[in-house]
Amino acid sequence: MYDFKIKKQSKLSKARVGELITPHGVIKTPTFIPVATLGVVKGGLLPEEYSSQCQITNTFHFLDLDRQDEIEKGGGLHKFFNFNKPIFTDSGGFQVFSLGKGSEYGLGKVGSIFPQGIERKKGKNLLRITQRGAKFKSPRDGREIVLTPELSYEVQKKLGADFIYLLDVCGTPLDSKEQAIEDINITNQWYNRFLKVVDGKQKIFGIIQGGVHKDLRLECTKHVNSLDVFGIAIGGALGNTKKEMYQTISNINKEIDLERPHHLLGIGDLEVIDKIVKLGVDLFDCALPTRVARHGTAFTKKGYLHLKSAKNKDRFIPIEKDCKCPTCKNYTIAQINFLFRAKEQLAGHLLTVHNLWFLENRLEQVRKEISAGRL
Amino acid sequence: MYDFKIKKQSKLSKARVGELITPHGVIKTPTFIPVATLGVVKGGLLPEEYSSQCQITNTFHFLDLDRQDEIEKGGGLHKFFNFNKPIFTDSGGFQVFSLGKGSEYGLGKVGSIFPQGIERKKGKNLLRITQRGAKFKSPRDGREIVLTPELSYEVQKKLGADFIYLLDVCGTPLDSKEQAIEDINITNQWYNRFLKVVDGKQKIFGIIQGGVHKDLRLECTKHVNSLDVFGIAIGGALGNTKKEMYQTISNINKEIDLERPHHLLGIGDLEVIDKIVKLGVDLFDCALPTRVARHGTAFTKKGYLHLKSAKNKDRFIPIEKDCKCPTCKNYTIAQINFLFRAKEQLAGHLLTVHNLWFLENRLEQVRKEISAGRL
Repeated sequence: MYDFKIKKQSKLSKARVGELITPHGVIKTPTFIPVATLGVVKGGLLPEEYSSQCQITNTFHFLDLDRQDEIEKGGGLHKFFNFNKPIFTDSGGFQVFSLGKGSEYGLGKVGSIFPQGIERKKGKNLLRITQRGAKFKSPRDGREIVLTPELSYEVQKKLGADFIYLLDVCGTPLDSKEQAIEDINITNQWYNRFLKVVDGKQKIFGIIQGGVHKDLRLECTKHVNSLDVFGIAIGGALGNTKKEMYQTISNINKEIDLERPHHLLGIGDLEVIDKIVKLGVDLFDCALPTRVARHGTAFTKKGYLHLKSAKNKDRFIPIEKDCKCPTCKNYTIAQINFLFRAKEQLAGHLLTVHNLWFLENRLEQVRKEISAGRL
Repeated sequence: MYDFKIKKQSKLSKARVGELITPHGVIKTPTFIPVATLGVVKGGLLPEEYSSQCQITNTFHFLDLDRQDEIEKGGGLHKFFNFNKPIFTDSGGFQVFSLGKGSEYGLGKVGSIFPQGIERKKGKNLLRITQRGAKFKSPRDGREIVLTPELSYEVQKKLGADFIYLLDVCGTPLDSKEQAIEDINITNQWYNRFLKVVDGKQKIFGIIQGGVHKDLRLECTKHVNSLDVFGIAIGGALGNTKKEMYQTISNINKEIDLERPHHLLGIGDLEVIDKIVKLGVDLFDCALPTRVARHGTAFTKKGYLHLKSAKNKDRFIPIEKDCKCPTCKNYTIAQINFLFRAKEQLAGHLLTVHNLWFLENRLEQVRKEISAGRL
């Protein structure tokens, strides 16, 4: 029922075109996975408005709301959210980062570099890591949640996604090498515990940690290669700059199993797409394209377009004139600009539809370029 | 281009089935007009998700945001908001009530009676009425806006709806008879000034004032009958109870011109529909059905259903099993309950679609009942 087939390997780079076969259909890779935090992409989209091939949902947030049993009773994520395409669930490892040091120091996955329109605020570190698991203070009601590998699996099993992820300690660019080593040791123990309890029905991605340290990344890559996992994800701190991120992926590429799908976790900036694809990334996910949409920023071939700006109020042209998305076919920049200033939800809705369409269309072009031997 | 044809007059009541012919299509009456405050119904619906035959937009809010020129430049409301059905614009008279004494005393159109799920807060009186016009303090930025009949027309002309409304002083159930008379005197002057500047391209509704005072209502009805207006609206304070509201409409019915369409302004509770239709109301509008939708309340044959309640979390059945709306066809109560508790916009979106569908379907049944001589 599951398979990953590489249909075309570029001769110019590590880029490849593939097919990820799942019980809910085939994902053409490389592709972008939109983030559907609590089962749906924010912005009020109906499933039929998604142009994306799949989505990723956050295990931690279901656990935080204690809703995993409800979803299981409702038939799992696909049925509960009327989404009949492949679904991924992360393990909660990202919240180990985002609610821990990510929050404390106001950090993103790539150091402190954020695209325009996004501001990261410093907050509290809501986390303590023990051998047993990640001890969270709920960001919602302050109660203690101990996320163990066993619990991460249990919740992911109840959610019933096609692909699930091992629970890791997701590090930060601020970590010392000693800290990174400590995190890897705990991560590896958690992986063993996680893999001991799985029933094999859902396919698993292992996650490569090791921060910005080449030797640690290589060691982790070899370890994840050795695990009984379907796919390989690149997680943790990727560097302080995009250049360092590319270097980190290049380092991993010296050892990574090329037969399995590669998922770069938590990255989805417009300007990195070509480069990460050329580094052999098959899947990448990020809340950014949908989050910036709700705040007025469109993805375009020329970069980010900020639609709220007053200078856009009389531009009666689509966001992109050759874009075939429902938003560009029916709405102009001036209209969307008005809806944003009027604080109508429809504004964010229209831009979310556009940004997801833009990305899927962009990746379709990328797949064609690779197939034609041009990337 | 415009016409109102009564196709069937009930012998059992004042109910009638009609056709309101407009440049943007025919409205079958009686019908409910959803409120699209700033051009779109709140809840992020695309125009193709509206099951309603038409919508009403608020002149005052465009003036408050100073966007009327922008809409005119964009081709008027229909083009700007991709809405190709008939549109009504109120005159701003409702805000004379809602931002004035309505805000000050926490009042609704029918005294202090509100359906479940709605709470009205007391606020400031942001208004002063002079002969010249209604002097508002903008609820948005505090600047002074003087809404004169001439300005109300100018803005409504720029917005370009099919139907526009005379500017009136919309009274409250708290007003003394002396106050009501004073309001009527100013209203009548405003009507004269308004009708002096119109170009006749949009069709006009005059509004009957007179509060709960039978003699004043009859006087106002005769006056509005005498004006060169296409339709007649019933405005102002309708009473302190629903019963008083029905009495007010009955009083008006003794004089109202039966050849013209009748619009009951600002009323849209589930439980009044049959009764107001039997009193000869052809059109009624209200923000309530869409506002309660965004807050978790569905319209059903059995009354209001509050979907946020925890007892609904395992009800894997549609809101109404025989409802053919896209929401009931695809979602269960349990799913929508989850989406509300997860604070996903999709929740309010789905209920807005349902409530509008419910009302249009309900009115379709009402029209059939009248045509069959049963109502």
